[in-house]
Amino acid sequence: MLATIMFGAGDVQIDNVPDARLVEATDAVVSVTRACICGSDLWPYNAMAHSDSGRRMGHEAIGVIEAIGADVNTLKVGDLVVMPFAYSDCTCDFCLEGLHTSCIHGGFFGTAQVAGAQAEAVRVPEADGTLFVLPVDKDDALMPSLLTLSDVMGTGHHAAVTARVGPGKTATVVGDGAVGLCGVIAARRLGADQIIIMGHHPDRIALAKKFGATDVVSERGDEAVERVRDLTGGYGVHSVLECVGLEQAMITAIKISRPGGAIGRVGVPQDDKMAASQLAFYNNITVSGGPAPVRAYIEDLLPDILDGNIQPGLVFDRSISLDDVPDGYRAMNQRKAIKVMIKP
Amino acid sequence: MLATIMFGAGDVQIDNVPDARLVEATDAVVSVTRACICGSDLWPYNAMAHSDSGRRMGHEAIGVIEAIGADVNTLKVGDLVVMPFAYSDCTCDFCLEGLHTSCIHGGFFGTAQVAGAQAEAVRVPEADGTLFVLPVDKDDALMPSLLTLSDVMGTGHHAAVTARVGPGKTATVVGDGAVGLCGVIAARRLGADQIIIMGHHPDRIALAKKFGATDVVSERGDEAVERVRDLTGGYGVHSVLECVGLEQAMITAIKISRPGGAIGRVGVPQDDKMAASQLAFYNNITVSGGPAPVRAYIEDLLPDILDGNIQPGLVFDRSISLDDVPDGYRAMNQRKAIKVMIKP
Repeated sequence: MLATIMFGAGDVQIDNVPDARLVEATDAVVSVTRACICGSDLWPYNAMAHSDSGRRMGHEAIGVIEAIGADVNTLKVGDLVVMPFAYSDCTCDFCLEGLHTSCIHGGFFGTAQVAGAQAEAVRVPEADGTLFVLPVDKDDALMPSLLTLSDVMGTGHHAAVTARVGPGKTATVVGDGAVGLCGVIAARRLGADQIIIMGHHPDRIALAKKFGATDVVSERGDEAVERVRDLTGGYGVHSVLECVGLEQAMITAIKISRPGGAIGRVGVPQDDKMAASQLAFYNNITVSGGPAPVRAYIEDLLPDILDGNIQPGLVFDRSISLDDVPDGYRAMNQRKAIKVMIKP
Repeated sequence: MLATIMFGAGDVQIDNVPDARLVEATDAVVSVTRACICGSDLWPYNAMAHSDSGRRMGHEAIGVIEAIGADVNTLKVGDLVVMPFAYSDCTCDFCLEGLHTSCIHGGFFGTAQVAGAQAEAVRVPEADGTLFVLPVDKDDALMPSLLTLSDVMGTGHHAAVTARVGPGKTATVVGDGAVGLCGVIAARRLGADQIIIMGHHPDRIALAKKFGATDVVSERGDEAVERVRDLTGGYGVHSVLECVGLEQAMITAIKISRPGGAIGRVGVPQDDKMAASQLAFYNNITVSGGPAPVRAYIEDLLPDILDGNIQPGLVFDRSISLDDVPDGYRAMNQRKAIKVMIKP
């Protein structure tokens, strides 16, 4: 079958690989009908050291179950399912607490252990726990929005939840990538009064406004901080959704937080030390967030997608075949596409 | 009047200074009946650069109101009051939200703006908001415990609240100083099932056990982390009360946190960058806390002190006169005293 392999920075190829197959009795094999490229795929795309064997990329997918292991009980061949970016058993202590990304039998797609989903098919461990059956046909018009349940919509929602967005509150979204844009949807959905998007790209800003952003801050650095303060009576915002992961984004997040405010960070931090820790301390700012337990959020978000209340699928502004995945990476890396959908 | 002045590291003196007096119409002057030395006073005691004018120390006190300004409405001369380490108007947006340490008209005692309370008397700005009238006599036997409402009991409580301690949860207190010991009281009071104290001093450990600690970890570094994990089924604890402020304490706090757990930090961070930020991120650990709004907590904690349900005053293991304050600093710095009470 065809699959996406990254051999190093800038080196993404589509190659023939052995067909995905059942390994554990709790596995399923899913024939991928939709996949996509993630902003987090761009970190290795820019920095990965060369690997002869390469890394099988992709952690977001919708597909049809092709095969199930002997211990899979709740799924059947032919089911249309959405696959969260992390697999999880849904029965361990952490899954029961809603933190599926810390499942004690869990892990991540697109790693050395479990191959990625930018492929014709993917092996899914802990299939009963991981996969969520969708109540629609595989060519439903809602497919782009449903695909965001794999990652970006759930991740934007996690940023909003951990930033304690709520009715009457003010929120700022740092980062205008697909996750940040979904963060705008989530902040709006959770009742924020004022939603400030920080970003520079006209197409993304337009989408943020469509999703509910009330204000745009396109300045950078301390000028941006000043603008946010001006927009919030000098206090800063209650909730910051940090959807970037770079040090400067975190410094900005802390500087624009209102005393007592909260930051939900979902951008993968690129530094092991967090800057501006003392400023966060003196202002009693809470720093929360991490890899989103998107599996936990599907039940919550799905009805709003099915009802058309939210349209996170609009973050996909390009759709390609598997053969064009290398072009897709280039387009996203050059900010020529917000998010690229793949139809294998 | 006599007051404590720090002129540099290790150089604390009792000197004659001009009497405390009203400056603003919202001020009160309080004749100090009890004050104390804080663990946070030891940071400058070990590191302060020489200053010819010196720094007037002390931010915890109980005393009797000697004079009030024209705009002070809720207090009268002769009232016995407890003074939180931060002054606040109790009317601004942040005070109304319970975050008095971010009061927009507030500030801190023992600074260049407002002199300290290790003195015969102290000027108290925003007196109506800052001071809390105590319903006891100035020589009441509960005086040591009531004095902890100025700082350490409220600060330990803040660590527990921001670490999200609650019934059925596991908690670890990092640091066996007075704040850490009060953190044990707070964790017990908020219903934690298991309270692990990390510390090395037998007298402090004994007090921690008296206050409700269920387990003691005296190891250091990664051995301590292993011990906490062993005590918690391998998972780590839900809540960490970080009552030190040094990098190693924060690294330990993050390593012993259960995925999805929370750290309430009240030790003043000595580094501007927080270590182990990525580990905190990957485990969805929330880092919260800051200067405790102890004014907000007095109403909540006072009844339990008056009823004898909690006895935070036991952290005072030495009582001295103002003349002996330099000895008091030495004793605390050498860990020969947990916390020193001053009777001016």
